[in-house]
Amino acid sequence: MAGDRVELWRSLEEVIAAGAPGRLQALLESLPPSEVVLAVSRLTDADRARLVEMMAPEAAAGLMEGMPEPQAVDLMERLSPERSAAIIEHLPSDEQADLLGELERADADAILSEMSPEQARSARTLSRYPDDVAGGLMVKEYLTFPASATVAEVLDDLRTHAGRYSTYQVQYAYVTREGRLHGVLRLRDLFFQPRDRCIEGILKKDPLTVLDTANLDHLREIFEHNLFFGVPVVDRRGRLVGVVTRAAVETARADRSENDYLKTQGIVGGEELRSMPLLLRSRRRLAWLSVNVALNILAASVIAFYQDTLAAVIALAVFLPIISDMSGCSGNQAVAVSMRELSLGLVRPTEVLRTWLKELWVGVMNGLALGGLVASAAWLWKGDWMLGLVVGAAMAINTVIAVSIGGTVPLILRRMKMDPALASGPILTTVTDMCGFFLVLSLAAACMPWLAPG
Amino acid sequence: MAGDRVELWRSLEEVIAAGAPGRLQALLESLPPSEVVLAVSRLTDADRARLVEMMAPEAAAGLMEGMPEPQAVDLMERLSPERSAAIIEHLPSDEQADLLGELERADADAILSEMSPEQARSARTLSRYPDDVAGGLMVKEYLTFPASATVAEVLDDLRTHAGRYSTYQVQYAYVTREGRLHGVLRLRDLFFQPRDRCIEGILKKDPLTVLDTANLDHLREIFEHNLFFGVPVVDRRGRLVGVVTRAAVETARADRSENDYLKTQGIVGGEELRSMPLLLRSRRRLAWLSVNVALNILAASVIAFYQDTLAAVIALAVFLPIISDMSGCSGNQAVAVSMRELSLGLVRPTEVLRTWLKELWVGVMNGLALGGLVASAAWLWKGDWMLGLVVGAAMAINTVIAVSIGGTVPLILRRMKMDPALASGPILTTVTDMCGFFLVLSLAAACMPWLAPG
Repeated sequence: MAGDRVELWRSLEEVIAAGAPGRLQALLESLPPSEVVLAVSRLTDADRARLVEMMAPEAAAGLMEGMPEPQAVDLMERLSPERSAAIIEHLPSDEQADLLGELERADADAILSEMSPEQARSARTLSRYPDDVAGGLMVKEYLTFPASATVAEVLDDLRTHAGRYSTYQVQYAYVTREGRLHGVLRLRDLFFQPRDRCIEGILKKDPLTVLDTANLDHLREIFEHNLFFGVPVVDRRGRLVGVVTRAAVETARADRSENDYLKTQGIVGGEELRSMPLLLRSRRRLAWLSVNVALNILAASVIAFYQDTLAAVIALAVFLPIISDMSGCSGNQAVAVSMRELSLGLVRPTEVLRTWLKELWVGVMNGLALGGLVASAAWLWKGDWMLGLVVGAAMAINTVIAVSIGGTVPLILRRMKMDPALASGPILTTVTDMCGFFLVLSLAAACMPWLAPG
Repeated sequence: MAGDRVELWRSLEEVIAAGAPGRLQALLESLPPSEVVLAVSRLTDADRARLVEMMAPEAAAGLMEGMPEPQAVDLMERLSPERSAAIIEHLPSDEQADLLGELERADADAILSEMSPEQARSARTLSRYPDDVAGGLMVKEYLTFPASATVAEVLDDLRTHAGRYSTYQVQYAYVTREGRLHGVLRLRDLFFQPRDRCIEGILKKDPLTVLDTANLDHLREIFEHNLFFGVPVVDRRGRLVGVVTRAAVETARADRSENDYLKTQGIVGGEELRSMPLLLRSRRRLAWLSVNVALNILAASVIAFYQDTLAAVIALAVFLPIISDMSGCSGNQAVAVSMRELSLGLVRPTEVLRTWLKELWVGVMNGLALGGLVASAAWLWKGDWMLGLVVGAAMAINTVIAVSIGGTVPLILRRMKMDPALASGPILTTVTDMCGFFLVLSLAAACMPWLAPG
């Protein structure tokens, strides 16, 4: 299996080096799409550009749809604007906009000036919207007819443009009057109508619409409570500007939650692929690590203040990392539940007090359990019940602190319009580390007369 | 805002207590769906059951679609099987199966026996599939006609059953011959055909299909390389068993990535909502924490072995948690990139060596950077260059170890058919903690003659 694959990449490289478009096409067609994505992702950037130069624009567009976005962007930057434009014209309008939005302004403008004026205008409009609002998720590929059209005119248009419409989602056509959305027409209803009837009489008026600025949570809610496959998007003046599909909303939701996961784990400055240059990967990861090392040193400085206590009861040093790690675990559980409830709409960012009370009791119970475990470990190891009491109490109290911070910080960050996925973790661990070290060492200092040394 | 909401929940509780279905309906209709989901989620379990008893089955089904799954399951367990069956019959077939699959076997059977035989059979079939394969994601709501039907027969059927078909995705009808999928019929093509023509002549033969056992990654790939909104699902004998939509696949992908995130953060034993009973929430979180506390004590036991070294150079105790935390951060970045590349199909579980080499160099570069930072901090604090060298070297080496483990463990776990989201974190932190503590303390022990005490 692994051997086959290496051979496959070699033959792809060979065909590219030989510049043989016919052999290339035959090779690509012989492979399942997942193998193609993998093989293409392992090419050098230059080979990938050469590959795409050899393909017909339509096939190249198909290949690019399966590519991770950073690779597709890099590719566009290597191709001539004419070539890029020819490929981009074969992508759905929302993907055109996503890609152009990621390019340098000058590169995007150069490509737009090579596209047909109509496509360029639509891509320009779409790329002005953020990725996660209706305007950024909608497509321009939909059917629209004036309210004055007849059944016959609609049917003729469908027949004439059958080719172009074949990639549209055509359950519904959108009917406009004076540029504004007037109603939706279920195409199936045309089956049962006389040809000379005006569609005005069979459309559904005042359809459900969303504003182009509606955010992802609002869109999810709409699709959760309706069975529609798509919803028309209007601007503030009621003009139809696009259609957002259920699938596009679900894709955006999946992308957001994958991104949130990456952010909580410290993959921050844009997505990382291992095919990217080493220096770029290292630099991006280091940016996040540097902030964390500073916060860590800050937290550990608490230990430095209590060196004498620690020197007197050196066994405490064993428990400092345990309390730091376990508080992090408890706090992260609370963060995860808050992130989940925020995304399900089951908690509002303002409900800090309610969330805290709900976490408090979990913290008390689990704090007692973890404190008991850690205290038992200390007692079993050193036979010193006072040592057990000190580390157990510190563990218990710090668990309560950790879940309190973990549960509420995501809500507070959301309220402050900051990104909870990004900042909750570092805030949590810094504060719980400081509190944890302080609790162990100050309790030990206070109980010093009763603690066995060593 | 917060005040309004409390009032709203009170009035919902009042209407339920008063048992006034008319007032209830008026209240629910006056609210945006997100407010309804939030208000209903805050009711007691008993009140929620009473609420649903008061609603028409169809409206209750609509309410349940917006509810988090654990609440919907609890609800079904509280209602009579007749009532549950009446509500479930108004849900799409894939959601019927999901819900029934979550119930106790006996409860599910009681509800199934109250459903219409046709719906019960379909729900029973669907609930046998895992949630994340084509069989578990497909719906039974699709149009199917025998290959021998005429255009007129299809049109008549569409007209007769317009009501029932209104929630179907009807761009295509699926054409069978002797029970097996024979082709797909684009409904729009019917517009342009004489009524007495047999559909055999206008259907598209050998359509793209997926097996009922196809997994989520395979389905994503299919939709990434095709513009279809739905794909017919067949069993091993080629019989049409359902249709899986692009939106269903994207929803499953979003759910999976949200679940993976929850698992990495230690929310493991089923999803947690803060409306659940305290004991259940505490117990589920504690199960995960107990494993971690044991692993933590194991890792920290390394410190216990080096008590004398630590007692001689107490400043080392400040750096142990820093090295433990920072190695965790570096390792988690590598875990996240591996998880991401696995889900995008950009790395195969077998490519452990390649991944390791890719991580190795990031680890060396970032290890040098972090080691330098930590060494500088130690030198600035104590003015002892040997202390800086010891902690800096330990930090650098342990960063390389952390990214090596973090990058490769998800692949190895996937190869062993274990869940990388669940196990990667604990394995990573346990090993890197042990190595980190060992490196700091054994290096210090070796360099003891040159280290300043205290």
